Amino acid sequence: MKTEAALLVKTGEPLVIATIETPPLKPGQVLVEVAYSGACGTQLMEVAGDKGEDKWVPHCLGHEGTGTVIEIGSAVTKVKPGDQVVLSWIKGSGIEAGGAVYDWDGKPVNAGGVTTFQRHAVVSENRLTHLPDGLPMDVAVLLGCAAPTGMGSVYNVLNVKAGDSVVVFGTGGIGLNAVMAAAIAGASPVIGVDLKAARRDLARAFGATHVIDPNEGDVAQQIKAITPHGVDLAVEATGSPDVMKTAIGVTRMQGGKAVVIGNARHDAALTINPSVFNQGKSLLGTWGGDSVPDRDYARYGRLISGTRYPVRDLLSAPYSLEQVNEALDDLRAGRIGRPLIDMRKR
Amino acid sequence: MKTEAALLVKTGEPLVIATIETPPLKPGQVLVEVAYSGACGTQLMEVAGDKGEDKWVPHCLGHEGTGTVIEIGSAVTKVKPGDQVVLSWIKGSGIEAGGAVYDWDGKPVNAGGVTTFQRHAVVSENRLTHLPDGLPMDVAVLLGCAAPTGMGSVYNVLNVKAGDSVVVFGTGGIGLNAVMAAAIAGASPVIGVDLKAARRDLARAFGATHVIDPNEGDVAQQIKAITPHGVDLAVEATGSPDVMKTAIGVTRMQGGKAVVIGNARHDAALTINPSVFNQGKSLLGTWGGDSVPDRDYARYGRLISGTRYPVRDLLSAPYSLEQVNEALDDLRAGRIGRPLIDMRKR
Repeated sequence: MKTEAALLVKTGEPLVIATIETPPLKPGQVLVEVAYSGACGTQLMEVAGDKGEDKWVPHCLGHEGTGTVIEIGSAVTKVKPGDQVVLSWIKGSGIEAGGAVYDWDGKPVNAGGVTTFQRHAVVSENRLTHLPDGLPMDVAVLLGCAAPTGMGSVYNVLNVKAGDSVVVFGTGGIGLNAVMAAAIAGASPVIGVDLKAARRDLARAFGATHVIDPNEGDVAQQIKAITPHGVDLAVEATGSPDVMKTAIGVTRMQGGKAVVIGNARHDAALTINPSVFNQGKSLLGTWGGDSVPDRDYARYGRLISGTRYPVRDLLSAPYSLEQVNEALDDLRAGRIGRPLIDMRKR
Repeated sequence: MKTEAALLVKTGEPLVIATIETPPLKPGQVLVEVAYSGACGTQLMEVAGDKGEDKWVPHCLGHEGTGTVIEIGSAVTKVKPGDQVVLSWIKGSGIEAGGAVYDWDGKPVNAGGVTTFQRHAVVSENRLTHLPDGLPMDVAVLLGCAAPTGMGSVYNVLNVKAGDSVVVFGTGGIGLNAVMAAAIAGASPVIGVDLKAARRDLARAFGATHVIDPNEGDVAQQIKAITPHGVDLAVEATGSPDVMKTAIGVTRMQGGKAVVIGNARHDAALTINPSVFNQGKSLLGTWGGDSVPDRDYARYGRLISGTRYPVRDLLSAPYSLEQVNEALDDLRAGRIGRPLIDMRKR
């Protein structure tokens, strides 16, 4: 069928809205009518070419969304037509069917196992999870990336417990999920650090007990004023090596942990004094917050549904697919938390 | 009382054997007749000045040993005269009584909460643990540092399970304990990497299924030939930033972990591409293998007593206190695993 998609044709240039033809489904592939897509720093980096040379252009993008199953390829058992689903880059159970190749007026358009900046998408079965009961499809786009990465880093990786002191660097979509997850689990204090006032306000709204503006002076000193002996746990959600260094620096001796969930540029370099490891501090990485979609997404969905925090505010007002470049610009400028793209909006 | 001790008088110079006077015991302090002391890379770094400016000279040193309690200060309840004990730098239960100041012909000699390069030592109660039943006093010096750090990094930090693939960089005293701990837990393969042939031989004797000589070519390539998709877990026991970089590099995507137990120079710099964290790899630090002496030393003692591996070979033939500089030279040159200093040998 024909559908519209936002394509990356050349790195460094705006996405192009194009009418493309979906290919016949291979075994394990699922055709989804996308309802909503989110967008995150990964797409900004892809568009800017910050992930290195892009051999796949032109290609589809977007790695978090929600939608309704239209058609299933052979061997698919996890979903059936009519099912409402979360689309996520994190692999769950089911077939890994590889990427799709669409047709754009005779030119091939590449796509990974899941893409979401389009009205219809061919998706690998293992990138789909059933929509948790009672969760609206717009808010549920958070389950595609921001919630599993942010909440998962807090619950699966750092194993935050009530009373732990936590600092989150960068309170965009993923960082705010981490702030909220820590607050829900009873962490205290929960400190949010962000250069943007709007994001600091959001951090407070999502449970941060303190917010820090790096423009107001040395961040480590400001954190020390709150937790003189260091914070127990840190979440680094900016991707900046300097911030990573601060994150490990401000954790406490003998057991302090910092998890890096910010996306680093492909050519970034982090330089630290390795004596931090002898001090018993750890610098943790994670693949999607160590989240297992089939195990965790229903749980995250319950947390999002049940929380007293204004989860809808994590998302922007809806953009149309045609406004995707505006959405990415607003994300880059920090004017919004997580962009929400409504595929039915014209 | 008067006793003999090996003192660091000036960094970069050999230790001086001196007759010093023990001070009266403060509350929480214990006078121990030292039976055996070990020595580790930390002492080599202290003597060389690799830990930065040393403001404490002249001072005692050594942080692992065994002995018999001679006298207890007020408020001490954990041990009594006649008890056989392990002396360890890792803090357990009991009073933290601070360091002792000895007298050397009218000059003050500093000492930390525990020191062991001496025939009698004033030790904080919290640095003493009862000698595990049935463990000879010479082998038990391993419990002061090498076993808790090496075994603890494997059991407490990496949580090694049967079937995990493990690589240990640097198979000196601590690294060999890590190799043995991994082998006992059923890890496979267990790969030992060391520049010295004698240490590679020891690694094999202590359960390594493979050993790698860095002189024979790129270490990462040699490891890849054994574990094509990366190793699950790595132990870095050399303190070299280059080796740390290799250690995190060779672990597998999505969950690989490297723990740094090697002591880094105070001015060392580790530079890595932070994208390793986005790949789900972690670089862990630890304070003494996260070991809790009162919980773990009896367990490590049972492992050491009960293992089929030739634990006695972890230690050198005994040196006398007067031979301490020779012991440190042999350790530095990699001619021995862990030096054993027998305080009764003259």
